[in-house]
Amino acid sequence: MGVVRDNGVVYKAVNEVDLGPNSDELYLHADVKAPRMAGLLAKVFVWFLEMKLIGNILLYFLKKNNRIQKLVSYGVLEESPLYVPLHPYQDAEEKEVKCLEPGVSPAEQVQHAIDCLQSSDTVLQDSNFSFCRWTILDYAKAYAKRQITPLVVAERLISAVVQSSSPEMDMSFFISYDAKDILRQAAESTLRHERGESISVLDGVPIGVKDEIDCMPYPTTGGSKWLHKVRPCKEDACCVKRLRSCGAILVGKTNMHELGAGTSGINPHYGTSRNPYDPRRISGGSSSGSAAIVCAGLCPVALGVDGGGSVRMPAALCGVVGLKPSFGRIPHSGVLPLNWTVGMVGVLAGTVEDSLIVYAAISGQADSHQPTTPRLHLPILKPSNMSSIRLAKSNEWFNDCSDDIRTCCLRALASLNKLYGWETVEVTLPDIEVMRLAHYVTIGSECTASIAHHLEKMGKSVSGWDVRVALSIYGSFSSRDYLNAQRIRNRQMRFHEKIFSMADVIVSPMVGVTAYEIKDDAQETGELDYVNGAALVRYSIAGNFLGLPAVTVPVGYDRLGLPVGIQFIGKPWSEAKLIQIAYAMEALCKAEYKKPKVFYDILGES
Amino acid sequence: MGVVRDNGVVYKAVNEVDLGPNSDELYLHADVKAPRMAGLLAKVFVWFLEMKLIGNILLYFLKKNNRIQKLVSYGVLEESPLYVPLHPYQDAEEKEVKCLEPGVSPAEQVQHAIDCLQSSDTVLQDSNFSFCRWTILDYAKAYAKRQITPLVVAERLISAVVQSSSPEMDMSFFISYDAKDILRQAAESTLRHERGESISVLDGVPIGVKDEIDCMPYPTTGGSKWLHKVRPCKEDACCVKRLRSCGAILVGKTNMHELGAGTSGINPHYGTSRNPYDPRRISGGSSSGSAAIVCAGLCPVALGVDGGGSVRMPAALCGVVGLKPSFGRIPHSGVLPLNWTVGMVGVLAGTVEDSLIVYAAISGQADSHQPTTPRLHLPILKPSNMSSIRLAKSNEWFNDCSDDIRTCCLRALASLNKLYGWETVEVTLPDIEVMRLAHYVTIGSECTASIAHHLEKMGKSVSGWDVRVALSIYGSFSSRDYLNAQRIRNRQMRFHEKIFSMADVIVSPMVGVTAYEIKDDAQETGELDYVNGAALVRYSIAGNFLGLPAVTVPVGYDRLGLPVGIQFIGKPWSEAKLIQIAYAMEALCKAEYKKPKVFYDILGES
Repeated sequence: MGVVRDNGVVYKAVNEVDLGPNSDELYLHADVKAPRMAGLLAKVFVWFLEMKLIGNILLYFLKKNNRIQKLVSYGVLEESPLYVPLHPYQDAEEKEVKCLEPGVSPAEQVQHAIDCLQSSDTVLQDSNFSFCRWTILDYAKAYAKRQITPLVVAERLISAVVQSSSPEMDMSFFISYDAKDILRQAAESTLRHERGESISVLDGVPIGVKDEIDCMPYPTTGGSKWLHKVRPCKEDACCVKRLRSCGAILVGKTNMHELGAGTSGINPHYGTSRNPYDPRRISGGSSSGSAAIVCAGLCPVALGVDGGGSVRMPAALCGVVGLKPSFGRIPHSGVLPLNWTVGMVGVLAGTVEDSLIVYAAISGQADSHQPTTPRLHLPILKPSNMSSIRLAKSNEWFNDCSDDIRTCCLRALASLNKLYGWETVEVTLPDIEVMRLAHYVTIGSECTASIAHHLEKMGKSVSGWDVRVALSIYGSFSSRDYLNAQRIRNRQMRFHEKIFSMADVIVSPMVGVTAYEIKDDAQETGELDYVNGAALVRYSIAGNFLGLPAVTVPVGYDRLGLPVGIQFIGKPWSEAKLIQIAYAMEALCKAEYKKPKVFYDILGES
Repeated sequence: MGVVRDNGVVYKAVNEVDLGPNSDELYLHADVKAPRMAGLLAKVFVWFLEMKLIGNILLYFLKKNNRIQKLVSYGVLEESPLYVPLHPYQDAEEKEVKCLEPGVSPAEQVQHAIDCLQSSDTVLQDSNFSFCRWTILDYAKAYAKRQITPLVVAERLISAVVQSSSPEMDMSFFISYDAKDILRQAAESTLRHERGESISVLDGVPIGVKDEIDCMPYPTTGGSKWLHKVRPCKEDACCVKRLRSCGAILVGKTNMHELGAGTSGINPHYGTSRNPYDPRRISGGSSSGSAAIVCAGLCPVALGVDGGGSVRMPAALCGVVGLKPSFGRIPHSGVLPLNWTVGMVGVLAGTVEDSLIVYAAISGQADSHQPTTPRLHLPILKPSNMSSIRLAKSNEWFNDCSDDIRTCCLRALASLNKLYGWETVEVTLPDIEVMRLAHYVTIGSECTASIAHHLEKMGKSVSGWDVRVALSIYGSFSSRDYLNAQRIRNRQMRFHEKIFSMADVIVSPMVGVTAYEIKDDAQETGELDYVNGAALVRYSIAGNFLGLPAVTVPVGYDRLGLPVGIQFIGKPWSEAKLIQIAYAMEALCKAEYKKPKVFYDILGES
């Protein structure tokens, strides 16, 4: 890092920082100085925070205590700001990769992805495994063999959603779904299948969409009670359009943390998406519903948006795959503009294979105004022929999680070393905590610039209590805070570039804690729990702040039976390799996957 | 613009804004609510401003009264932020242009520029003109014909600088110059000429460098008393290196407005660069010394840095040519990082021809990490064969200047129409005043993020009083202010793109007022004169905020005999065409150029 002088840290020059395993760089643990608050306490806190003078004083101490001032605002560093993590690209030779030309339709891209699944001859429910989620190909095959129709699938899905929404279960998966609209799409797909005119393997496959992404005929609430009123949804987002053009059935808008401004998924307006592995616990956020419905078997895939781990964290907590592509890979049009430089559409899926198929369907910039966006590369999935991979591991960071998570992830890593002969490269990734704070300043500032004018018009009380705290903090950042955060972004990018000259990917746990309990007092007010929040986002930030592609794969369970995910972070634009790696990891773990307590066997009863 | 609602303006969608001549878009005059202050008043104001609570209240009202809140902070607009005005480029066919391959040396680029001066057979001092500054080619020819040596030129220059610095004249052209270093360079150049080994036409040509650009052996003060102490100059800036490699004699560091934080050039630490046309008046800023030395004949060219018109404004006030290339055209390394997204190295020259030669010498990105930077195009200068040009003119904006300036610029424009048959396209450029404020927020925020930590360490009193006011305002911007300013940047870029679909260049006066008087009370404290400041920068902002290339050419004089400049603003990367246009303009005006009161005929006595 550097020395602390006066108010701020004077950062060392990048080239003077030792990135080796024995570096004397201090690993800074998240030292969050904010007690958990919910219920009345949260309300009183908000009441003070929103007072003009007292609020400013409170905010001053909040930022100071949580080291934002020392590490970001008053940090002294050489780097100029890096505002947008869009990376230049040079086409390179890649092995076991299929490279697509631009101008290919989503359905054709899906077909190319299918061609990449060479070894995937999984028949319906592989009997070697205790538990296996239905995949897109399972659906496609069942439809092709006329074992079931999309209409029956839709009916089963709707009845499952109704059941899960009952007061007894209260799973709160969706913010909105329209049975009539689902059945209409299913009927059309059924007709196409009957006529032998199915558009792609996605034809008739149910897909949920996070309520941060425009999808007709639903409002886009962003998990709030008001955003859809000031910003009506007028058409499908580009990614949704592409899925629709492949024949997918869009089954509704999944629940999320209000405005994506939290990691628990606890939502006082629409209920809290519960974790199918233990419904007393969170499914994580902010793409809580998308993770939960894939986990519970309602859909093989769902879309999320990942601004600070919001796809990958709930994926890990719910034991599913979460893929966040490189910044700029998927068009952002039709996604709520809650920020401009960190958020990205991502895919939650039951299997790596399915994340690849949907990734292929929605990837590629809509216009050619992005000269730096490379062509789409799809990996040929075959774990046996994976070339040798070097995995960078930063020990103190890797180990900064619960014992069970550490054990699980170390075992998974060891099996990669042993069974594939992959090499682990010990490194030190410096200033991870600094990056978390700089990202927080960035996403908070951008969120404020994007939506504060709405809130000023309507009054702050339209938001939940926890979000009101977040918005107060978000609104307190200076332009200097923001610009210094962008300089930290540049600095971190240089560190990561150096790490990537030593290794193919960075490996880490996905989250620091497994799914925690939803406490009674949190349901009405939301919950302020920055300690758990910091533990959840600990491994997410590079994916967002630096625009790097990242993927999480389930690798086991803690002693309570709650899922644990590992994460791989790749070089810019290296999704193809990343998906190959995730596929190889999954192959080693899937025999031990466990069925969630809440599970709907939508296709199984066919 | 849009409607004012609650606290902020709700901006119209870009496509709904009429850019035609009869548009009902309101032209907002700069309504600056800040009285002129200098001397004791300025000191008292600073004293209040720097008090914690009272200062914040003062700043609140300053920003509110000056419409920053209404137009920027609380403005409501659709656009996402455009952080860096670096434009993508597609190679297009251009007429009368020489296109250079990358990897050419600066001296070779200079030779290519010379090849472009086909019609330039100007012999020493053209007798048709009452007054004509010596050009680079005049120097080169005089050296080639052995009429004079670089050493004699250097001696004359040094004695002129000494004379101009005498208490009676007090011209304050330079912050530092080292006679020994100048003579050493001149001796080396003389030797090269004697051996017939001159490197380029720039060999032995004296060039001044704004004290914001690193140039050995001088400190880089940025016009301050402290910046060079915390940031020692260790090597030449890239642009200086290139000039040196062409054989140019670097004659010292020219005076400037402290930290570039003002437009007058009034500097309480190093004296105020006086205007050679009337030494009681300002030369303008912030590149005040560079404009003045070119005006006074000390150097045919000087380098400046243009972050908010800082090259073009003093050029116009001093009756010389000022060229600010596209953002990204000239490497910024070795320039004080006072901002990251608006400042650019620019060229001040006695003639358009010379601005082309030095532009050629210093252009081109140093590394190939800028895939969007196009190859260098040089214009073939021959006014007679200029193809037809369409000049966009936004009337209310064009006319928002003193009567004399308006008359001069309209006459110049009419002569372009008449003598070349060029067409004026009447347009409306909306929200010019909004752009000025957004740029102010941007440059202020970036300046704070870049240097505030130094000032916190040393105390604010190291800066002049006027700069302390500027720094207080700069430090008061929120991240929301900054981000909204970047959204306005995007919006303005879209307006300008539309204008450029209708015309080749935008034409305007360069400044709203001619050089004004240096008042006695300003010398010690600096001067706060935001009314004149706003008038000076009125036409500059698009060049910086949108990264567009722009050039000013002298076109006449006001009734006091003070120079008036016209401005042409071009499409991104269109410097070649812009220089052609400037050359054609100059050809129509140069017969009437007048000699400044303070003028040193460095080459003439040879």
